[in-house]
Amino acid sequence: MKKALVIGVTVGDPAGIGPEIVIKALLKKKYPGTRVVVFADRAVLEQAMDIARQKAPIHEIAGKEDIGRGAKGIQLVPGNVIHQPVTMGKVSRDCGRAAHVYFSTALDWALAGWIDGVATAPLQKEALKLGGCRQLDHTGILKHQTDSAETTTLFITGRLRVFFLTRHLPLRDVARALRKEELDAAIPRCIGFLEQLGIASPKLAVAALNPHGGEEGMFGQEEKEILAPSIQEARKKGLNVAGPIPADSVFHLAKEGVYDGVISLYHDQGHIATKTLDFYKTVSLTMGLPFLRTSVDHGTAFNIAGKNLANETSMIEAIRAAARYAGRVRAAAS
Amino acid sequence: MKKALVIGVTVGDPAGIGPEIVIKALLKKKYPGTRVVVFADRAVLEQAMDIARQKAPIHEIAGKEDIGRGAKGIQLVPGNVIHQPVTMGKVSRDCGRAAHVYFSTALDWALAGWIDGVATAPLQKEALKLGGCRQLDHTGILKHQTDSAETTTLFITGRLRVFFLTRHLPLRDVARALRKEELDAAIPRCIGFLEQLGIASPKLAVAALNPHGGEEGMFGQEEKEILAPSIQEARKKGLNVAGPIPADSVFHLAKEGVYDGVISLYHDQGHIATKTLDFYKTVSLTMGLPFLRTSVDHGTAFNIAGKNLANETSMIEAIRAAARYAGRVRAAAS
Repeated sequence: MKKALVIGVTVGDPAGIGPEIVIKALLKKKYPGTRVVVFADRAVLEQAMDIARQKAPIHEIAGKEDIGRGAKGIQLVPGNVIHQPVTMGKVSRDCGRAAHVYFSTALDWALAGWIDGVATAPLQKEALKLGGCRQLDHTGILKHQTDSAETTTLFITGRLRVFFLTRHLPLRDVARALRKEELDAAIPRCIGFLEQLGIASPKLAVAALNPHGGEEGMFGQEEKEILAPSIQEARKKGLNVAGPIPADSVFHLAKEGVYDGVISLYHDQGHIATKTLDFYKTVSLTMGLPFLRTSVDHGTAFNIAGKNLANETSMIEAIRAAARYAGRVRAAAS
Repeated sequence: MKKALVIGVTVGDPAGIGPEIVIKALLKKKYPGTRVVVFADRAVLEQAMDIARQKAPIHEIAGKEDIGRGAKGIQLVPGNVIHQPVTMGKVSRDCGRAAHVYFSTALDWALAGWIDGVATAPLQKEALKLGGCRQLDHTGILKHQTDSAETTTLFITGRLRVFFLTRHLPLRDVARALRKEELDAAIPRCIGFLEQLGIASPKLAVAALNPHGGEEGMFGQEEKEILAPSIQEARKKGLNVAGPIPADSVFHLAKEGVYDGVISLYHDQGHIATKTLDFYKTVSLTMGLPFLRTSVDHGTAFNIAGKNLANETSMIEAIRAAARYAGRVRAAAS
C-alpha cells in the first residue's frame, strides 16, 4: 500500500485570517490520500472554529509516530505560545512569536522527514519582528533554517506558472538590478523545477521588461543587452526557452499552454498576471528546498480578521498543490 | 424612429491581419441598431474575403447620403491606394500609405459628423513611416487631425476598465516620469470619462507603483510622496477615488466590481492585467476626442497574416464597444 503523504499546515499570525482559512479549508474540503498536521495552538484553532462556525475535535500530537493515529478530527502540533483568544486584527508580539514558532516547528518536522511538505497561511511582518524573529518573512526563515542558499518562488494559477527573477524592489530599481548572470542561472534552474513538478520537456519563456519588448530599442535597451543574449546562449546549450516575449502577451500565451512556465522579471509583473487572472486560485510554491513549501498568495487581511469574511480558496489550493507536488519535489531533492 | 448609429471601421495595414479580422467580424456577427462603413480598398477587402473564406457584395459609397442605401453587403469608402492583392506579412510603403489614408478619411467623416465613432484594426509603424506619415501611430494621427491636446486610453475587459497615466516609456524611466500634477489632472478627467460611458457616480482607484504599494516606504517612496497626496487632495474636493492600491489587488478588485475604473501608472501594468485576464476580449477606447474611437488591443501579427489564423474576437468587441458608447461620447462632447 502506498504511504499517505503528510502535509503540515501552519496558521500564520493568529490575529489575521490565517487560522480561519485553515479551519475552513480543512473542515469544508477533503484531501484524498493526504494526511494533514496543523501547527498552531488549541486556543487559536478553537477561536477560529468559533469565527468560522465550524466544529471538530482537536488531537494534540508530539511526533511522527502519532500522525494519523486516533479518532477523526484535526491533528495539532501545539506551539504552546497562545493560551487564550487573541484580539483579532491587531499587531502583537505574542502573535508574532506564535507565528514564528508554528512555522519553525513545521520546518523542523519537514527537515526530519516527518512531513512531506508545508502549506503556510500568512504572517504579519511587523508582529514577526516584535516577536523577536530576525528574518523578515517566510522566505527569510526558510533560507535560514533549511540552509538553502537559493530558493525560487513559483506562482501557479491554473495552467499559468510564473517564476520571479527579482523580489521586493522599488520599481525604479528594477531595470538596473537585472543581471545577465542571474538570468543565465535562472533559466536551467526554472526548467529543472518544472521537471520536478512532473512536466516532461518543459517550454520556458522569459518576459520582456519594456513595453512591446522594447520595440527594437525604441522603448528600452535591456531586451537587446541582457535578455536576448542570455536566452540565445541558453538555446545554444539546448535549453527550451523563448523570449524575451512582451509582458502583455507572454502570460496569456502561457495560460493557453504555449509555454509551461514564464520567468517574470519583477514582483508586480508576475503578481499582476496571476492575481488578476484568478486572485483566489493563485498559489505560491517555494522551490529549491529539501521539501516543498506552498503558500496562499495573500496577506493577513487584518481589516476583515475575525469576521468570518475570509475566502479560503487560496488556502485550499495551497494544500492541494502541496499534496500534488510534495512527493515529487522530495524525491527530486533527495 | 431612432436614427441608427453609424460606426466607421478601418482595416489598418493591408499586409497585416486587419482586413481579415474586419471581414470576419462583419460577416460572422451582427450589430443590431448599428450601420457599419468600412474604410479600405476593394482589392484589400476581396483579398481578405479569399483569406477568410467569406463572400459578400461590396458597395462603394462617397458620402453621408449613401450610408445604409442599397442592397445588403459591405459599404466601403475606398482609399484608392491599393488596386491589386498585396504581399501579406511584409512592410511596404504602399500599405503604410493606404493605412494612413483609410484612417485619415475615417477621421474626416467622424469630424464631419457623418459617422458616430471609429473602430480601428492595427497599423504597422514602420510601414506608416515609409508611407510618409509624420505621426508615429493612431494616437499621434488622432491628436494631429482632431486638434485634441489631451487624449486618454481606456482598456475595457469585461467589468475591468483601465486608464493609463503614461504610455510607451522604458521601465527604467517610469518612476521618475511620474508627476503629481498629471495625476491631479487625470483623476477628475477619468471620472468624467467613466460618466461619459454611462456609469453613475463612478468609483475610481489608482494603482500603486511599487510592490505591496511600497509597504510603508520599505520598497519605494512614490506612494507617499506623489500618489497618496494627489489622491487625498482629490478626495477633499469630493472626488470618489481610492488608492494607491497595490497593483496585484487593484485589478482583481475592479474586475469584481469594487471599483469602476483603475488608473494604471505605466504601459505594462495595465496591459498585463487586461490582456492576461482575456486577451481577445480586451478593447481599447480613446477618450477625450469629439467622437469615440475604439481599437483592437493587438498588432498587425505579420507572422500569421494571410493564413486565416487570426482571431476576430477583439475586432468584434471593438465594434460592439463603439456601438455601445459612441452615442453617449458624442453627446457629452458636443
